[in-house]
Amino acid sequence: MTQFQFQQIGVVHSCYKQKFGIPRQPGLVKQASASIELLPPFNRLDTLDGLEGFSHIWVHFIFHQCINDNWKAKIRPPRLGGKKKMGIFATRATHRPNPLGLSVVELLSIRQEDGRVFIDIAGADLLDQTPVVDIKPYLPYADAITDAQGGFAPERTELKPVFFSELALSQLNDYKETYQRDLKPLIEQVIGQDPRPSHMTQQQGRTHANTLWNADVKWVAENGQFHVLYIDYPFGD
Amino acid sequence: MTQFQFQQIGVVHSCYKQKFGIPRQPGLVKQASASIELLPPFNRLDTLDGLEGFSHIWVHFIFHQCINDNWKAKIRPPRLGGKKKMGIFATRATHRPNPLGLSVVELLSIRQEDGRVFIDIAGADLLDQTPVVDIKPYLPYADAITDAQGGFAPERTELKPVFFSELALSQLNDYKETYQRDLKPLIEQVIGQDPRPSHMTQQQGRTHANTLWNADVKWVAENGQFHVLYIDYPFGD
Repeated sequence: MTQFQFQQIGVVHSCYKQKFGIPRQPGLVKQASASIELLPPFNRLDTLDGLEGFSHIWVHFIFHQCINDNWKAKIRPPRLGGKKKMGIFATRATHRPNPLGLSVVELLSIRQEDGRVFIDIAGADLLDQTPVVDIKPYLPYADAITDAQGGFAPERTELKPVFFSELALSQLNDYKETYQRDLKPLIEQVIGQDPRPSHMTQQQGRTHANTLWNADVKWVAENGQFHVLYIDYPFGD
Repeated sequence: MTQFQFQQIGVVHSCYKQKFGIPRQPGLVKQASASIELLPPFNRLDTLDGLEGFSHIWVHFIFHQCINDNWKAKIRPPRLGGKKKMGIFATRATHRPNPLGLSVVELLSIRQEDGRVFIDIAGADLLDQTPVVDIKPYLPYADAITDAQGGFAPERTELKPVFFSELALSQLNDYKETYQRDLKPLIEQVIGQDPRPSHMTQQQGRTHANTLWNADVKWVAENGQFHVLYIDYPFGD
């Protein structure tokens, strides 16, 4: 079997410290700001000349937590509630013959700091520390196919409302003052998409946790509603 | 530097037998029909279950004629007439740090023949024998960003008219009877996009040749018009 060698050209820095809670497609959570850092010998601003004119970019990345996992011919996409199996190439599942991911993200800015080169992006569905193997401009005339048919995933998932306890709200205020970062819209979008695997969606009262940046957000699902209980911070790092 | 191993999952069979003449983006030449053959152990219909509901698919492939070439930080995109340099990651050029290509193509059908599994596609910009490393469904709600800004390549290239000699027209008729394949629209689109590299566009009267399937198409550019002289067939193979 023919093999190809790919080298890492960059690394993702993002709010998503764990797989659980990452939106299943990019762009769903507009609040997710992240950056791609170009690694040597690619850490040169000139490799990005002209990219600033594009509003969106493609990121080719590695599902680095799935590299040595076995692939299966069929998997259960979360979009189908875990009830139906689909062929692996009919999905964007992470356990693929080649653990290659593809995301279109919004390009915010390109900056250099202490010799390090960063591309700031929004709408990312990328795990922190994800290896990047290529970056390409999004070409609307070729890539935006407005009449495309979307098979079993024709539409965006609707966000459900998320409620916050008094404690959570006051913690969010304190967090914002401390870190100059408003977590609330990010939490609303990450939890509002219902990140639970399908086998958990019938369970009541179980406390879930999502780590976003250095905050661990504790929440429960009750009667189809999501309630944030409290936030543990600083967490990890 | 971190390296990743990718294995080939399929191979492209296409009308494009050489790099010259391949559209610079997929979808430009709707006539280009091609197929992806899944290679063992991936040559299983069940890996594609559910894909038939999608009108378009992403093909991740290898620029196999550029694998050992060196990358440059800046290149001259053909869209800018060879006059201006852009950063390699601001283009989709083939000479990249990782020779990874990305094309969205129309999905026509999925078929099995003598134990071989084929995905028939249209609108492909893929060289014959291109190695494929992944196939994913095109998700309109995530991938079709209608308000994206396209930098220095905001629009599709307009096709120019292509004229045929009497000899070429009669050869096209004969070719069609022999091979049940109408080459004319494909030729009009391949040549009508002006496939010449920018340093050649000022040259008059030079005979160019494009191999499409098993036909070698000879043509000239004169006063901004394209004239097909004759067709050499069967050619190659």
